[in-house]
Amino acid sequence: MHQDAASLRVTYLVHAAPEAVAARAEALMLEQTVELPRAAAGRHPWVAAHMLGCVEEIQPAGAGVHRVTIAQPLAVAAGDPAQLLSVLLGNASLQPDVFLADVELPEAAFDWLPGPRAGLAGLRALAGVTGRPLLATALKPMGLRPAQLAGLCDTFARAGLDLIKDDHGLADHPFCPFEARVEACLAAVDAAARETGRRALYVPNVTGTPERVHRQLEFARRAGVPAAMLSPMLVGLPLLHELAASAEGLPLVAHPAFAGGLRVAEAALFGKLFRWYGADAVIFPHAGGRFSYSEETCRALADALRAPHPRARQAFPAPAGGIRVEQVAELVDFYGPDCILLIGGSLYEAGDALFARTRELVERMSRAVAEAVR
Amino acid sequence: MHQDAASLRVTYLVHAAPEAVAARAEALMLEQTVELPRAAAGRHPWVAAHMLGCVEEIQPAGAGVHRVTIAQPLAVAAGDPAQLLSVLLGNASLQPDVFLADVELPEAAFDWLPGPRAGLAGLRALAGVTGRPLLATALKPMGLRPAQLAGLCDTFARAGLDLIKDDHGLADHPFCPFEARVEACLAAVDAAARETGRRALYVPNVTGTPERVHRQLEFARRAGVPAAMLSPMLVGLPLLHELAASAEGLPLVAHPAFAGGLRVAEAALFGKLFRWYGADAVIFPHAGGRFSYSEETCRALADALRAPHPRARQAFPAPAGGIRVEQVAELVDFYGPDCILLIGGSLYEAGDALFARTRELVERMSRAVAEAVR
Repeated sequence: MHQDAASLRVTYLVHAAPEAVAARAEALMLEQTVELPRAAAGRHPWVAAHMLGCVEEIQPAGAGVHRVTIAQPLAVAAGDPAQLLSVLLGNASLQPDVFLADVELPEAAFDWLPGPRAGLAGLRALAGVTGRPLLATALKPMGLRPAQLAGLCDTFARAGLDLIKDDHGLADHPFCPFEARVEACLAAVDAAARETGRRALYVPNVTGTPERVHRQLEFARRAGVPAAMLSPMLVGLPLLHELAASAEGLPLVAHPAFAGGLRVAEAALFGKLFRWYGADAVIFPHAGGRFSYSEETCRALADALRAPHPRARQAFPAPAGGIRVEQVAELVDFYGPDCILLIGGSLYEAGDALFARTRELVERMSRAVAEAVR
Repeated sequence: MHQDAASLRVTYLVHAAPEAVAARAEALMLEQTVELPRAAAGRHPWVAAHMLGCVEEIQPAGAGVHRVTIAQPLAVAAGDPAQLLSVLLGNASLQPDVFLADVELPEAAFDWLPGPRAGLAGLRALAGVTGRPLLATALKPMGLRPAQLAGLCDTFARAGLDLIKDDHGLADHPFCPFEARVEACLAAVDAAARETGRRALYVPNVTGTPERVHRQLEFARRAGVPAAMLSPMLVGLPLLHELAASAEGLPLVAHPAFAGGLRVAEAALFGKLFRWYGADAVIFPHAGGRFSYSEETCRALADALRAPHPRARQAFPAPAGGIRVEQVAELVDFYGPDCILLIGGSLYEAGDALFARTRELVERMSRAVAEAVR
């Protein structure tokens, strides 16, 4: 048995018959690092001693499925976020009998994993909100000009939302260039703040090739944006790490676009990897909307983002995806105060009554919090 | 009906009952761009005219499944590879009733999509091989020092392989730094070339955050490496685009690590997107090995990589994943001469007889080609 506290531990669900699972687990362990049978890898004593992990535990987990825990030396990950993904689910992603259920990293991994820059507490401080969930919405649809998006910012900010983010589909389109959008939307929340005394956080979406994302983020930072959003699976998860680890940067809200379908438990991907790689808040589809997560998945994901950790700050869960204004009290009850409720369509459907509908959302939040305290 | 030749066309398999599929297809079309119901998006005439796509075709495709073709204006992709992924399968990746079956892009997309830098013909010219598949292997296991990997290079090159690549698990480990590895392996293939008169292509693996990958690739280029390998889904698919589109760069071999499990047809992801984003060769698991692709999938993937295209060069299919030395003739027959056969374990299992076993592979290729010609 491998008993090294410095190992990383990966738990897979493996589809295999009881008599076959031990050999399958061993093959999986080797596939993820040395990619050779044990006999061939073992010809090199240093490799055998330092690169080979071990199968620590195999437990039945339903008909034809076993829960397999594999320990790998942390050294195989080479202090790099892309290489860590490879060790966790590189080749194994191509093997449909394998599902990544969970991952645990030793503290030493956080010598090179940044974790959230601001985290839950830092984003809360930026928003100036205590004791209740933050209320957020998205600017859309794609196709609006910067001035039109700024008009929406104005409405949402004056109505009292805490965070106003770009829809993840807002890229650097010629009809709505990133720079012009950021300047117009920032000016709008500033103007509203002079009226209301509270400044909503405007969070632009950065997307594109790594060079474009760096350029957009730098522009946003200089313009005075408090945080930015990106979709780690669209731009590449290692870019999230790179941005979060850089000395100069912004808190980052992560969007789940292109992250579905992988054979990875949502709580492991969004709740752990996204947080470890540097997301300060993670958007995910709440149960019951037009996506398919169960309440159990949502709870596990939110719990993972907020779990105490010796090296990584807590991150905000941000449930979204079809939440109705009328569900606010129910969601405060489900997630507690440490979340960001992201509500889009249920506001936009009000059309010309957008301000009134947004006020209703804000008031429902006040009442829900007052009742929760009582 | 949308009849615009400048639209991008995405075909999805959608799990929906016949009476529900039209509404589901319309919702999917909107989800991927404006992310609002048609009524809300349609409030803005310019958005309705220029951002909304249309459902072009719905065909039954088995019990409870329909083949849905959606046309989206190319403008929604903003000339950007990350945004294109978002339009194809951003939010829809989180909806398990949707599978991306195929995608067609108008020629105008290749104003900003680079396609392969060297392509099949260019890599062939670099290898100096005509009329037959290239023979390739991988350097492993992780844990070997640069001098040990160089020793393997020497053996493989003298035995007559055309291409010798790093295993995708070879990162920038302290015990085998990228720079030292590249220098040692290049020196080894050079020394062998002075003996044999033929220079094998040494292809190092670049991996890590975008900044690290850029640094590694630049070092490799200056050192005289002919091509490099990367795993687009580990490092982020838009980084492949960035590297392929840069004026100074190298031909790129793409590895499929972390690319499995997505609800995307392999021929669309590996055969089209990888090629369009700039891969000169694409490694994928051949049918019947320790992965799970069918012969039909392998053939569709290889055909897509080699299909004539008005703007993008052909790319090399590189089947791998458990191919045996004894299968060479069978694979030449299956893929024809325009492929790279990547064989690892079946060589390494020879242990001390590695040179002889590699010679056997080379000779089997000669015989297979001679017989195919006869």
